[in-house]
Amino acid sequence: MKLYDLPASPNARRVRIFVAEKGLDIPLVPVNMMENENKTDEYMAKNSLGRMPLLELDDGSCIAESMAICRYLEELHPEPPLLGRDALDKAMVEMWQRRMEFELLMPIIAVFRNTAEMFKDRVQQIPEMAEVEAENVKAKIEWLEKELEGKQYIANDEYTAADITAQCSFVMAKAALGIRIPEEMSNLNQWWERVTSRPTARA
Amino acid sequence: MKLYDLPASPNARRVRIFVAEKGLDIPLVPVNMMENENKTDEYMAKNSLGRMPLLELDDGSCIAESMAICRYLEELHPEPPLLGRDALDKAMVEMWQRRMEFELLMPIIAVFRNTAEMFKDRVQQIPEMAEVEAENVKAKIEWLEKELEGKQYIANDEYTAADITAQCSFVMAKAALGIRIPEEMSNLNQWWERVTSRPTARA
Repeated sequence: MKLYDLPASPNARRVRIFVAEKGLDIPLVPVNMMENENKTDEYMAKNSLGRMPLLELDDGSCIAESMAICRYLEELHPEPPLLGRDALDKAMVEMWQRRMEFELLMPIIAVFRNTAEMFKDRVQQIPEMAEVEAENVKAKIEWLEKELEGKQYIANDEYTAADITAQCSFVMAKAALGIRIPEEMSNLNQWWERVTSRPTARA
Repeated sequence: MKLYDLPASPNARRVRIFVAEKGLDIPLVPVNMMENENKTDEYMAKNSLGRMPLLELDDGSCIAESMAICRYLEELHPEPPLLGRDALDKAMVEMWQRRMEFELLMPIIAVFRNTAEMFKDRVQQIPEMAEVEAENVKAKIEWLEKELEGKQYIANDEYTAADITAQCSFVMAKAALGIRIPEEMSNLNQWWERVTSRPTARA
């Protein structure tokens, strides 16, 4: 098994943290996107969308999409459960993981893609789009602060994939856009302290 | 159990088809978005993002997000499996379901939101965004045609949630944007025939 990795990508980081939380040791193969290593025929045969992360199994099967990789690893190594325990709990983790992905991570990535120098020649940047999504990110951070009232973690009372997605979103927001959790948001700041003090946070 | 529904929404349709494929009979509660029924305090207490579909259980628990609802129903009613059988198969269904969601459904919704009259007062419409995403949709339909070569269904050799998401994407593309599967794309047209001839297609 090997994991094709894009070190700075929030999606790749989600999977690396998931792997570390499971206590697994999967060899990483860094793919240099700036050198178009993800667009070679060899790589495109593994993932026709040319994206990372990608998990290649020993029989050559390739699993793309961060959450599909996590789902596979959860099936093989159920402990500790990061995608929920019983039916309702699994639904709650899925709901919150998706909310973190759609309400935080994607708008943050949208702001970055529509403003960053490195994407200038790769996508048609739309500054108005970046503005709209930056406002959206701010509003969703306020929403999440309220939703965290009385909660230790995002989906339930333990650390799950929903926390991983949220924490990788905030890492990117800070590093790429300078957006931080406002000081007065005590729920989010306590949660941030809780998740980033885990030994896996820098995976 | 009851399902808060938005009849014309592709996300709500995905869940209705999933429910019908499982042979379940869950009462539908239509929510009128144009009358802001999804923004009442009562509804916002069930889903603080004010969106449909939403599954309310008899104990009052509420599950938002289409795929979280499907995950819950799959756990309770595993037959027929619509989210995969073994670990690798589940990963493949998740991968393809997400690809259909991110590469087809979301760009189609983005074109609609950025052009439709009904969204004029609800979102800040960006015509350039609609153009970029419409090109994206076209490119992804071509990509999918190639990916379907030699395959009966999108994720594996049986009908799964990945097909449901793709079919609801094409329903919306046609109804809302007039985008159809080009005649010369035989793989996609055969697949379309296959999925829309199922008794659940009009759920």
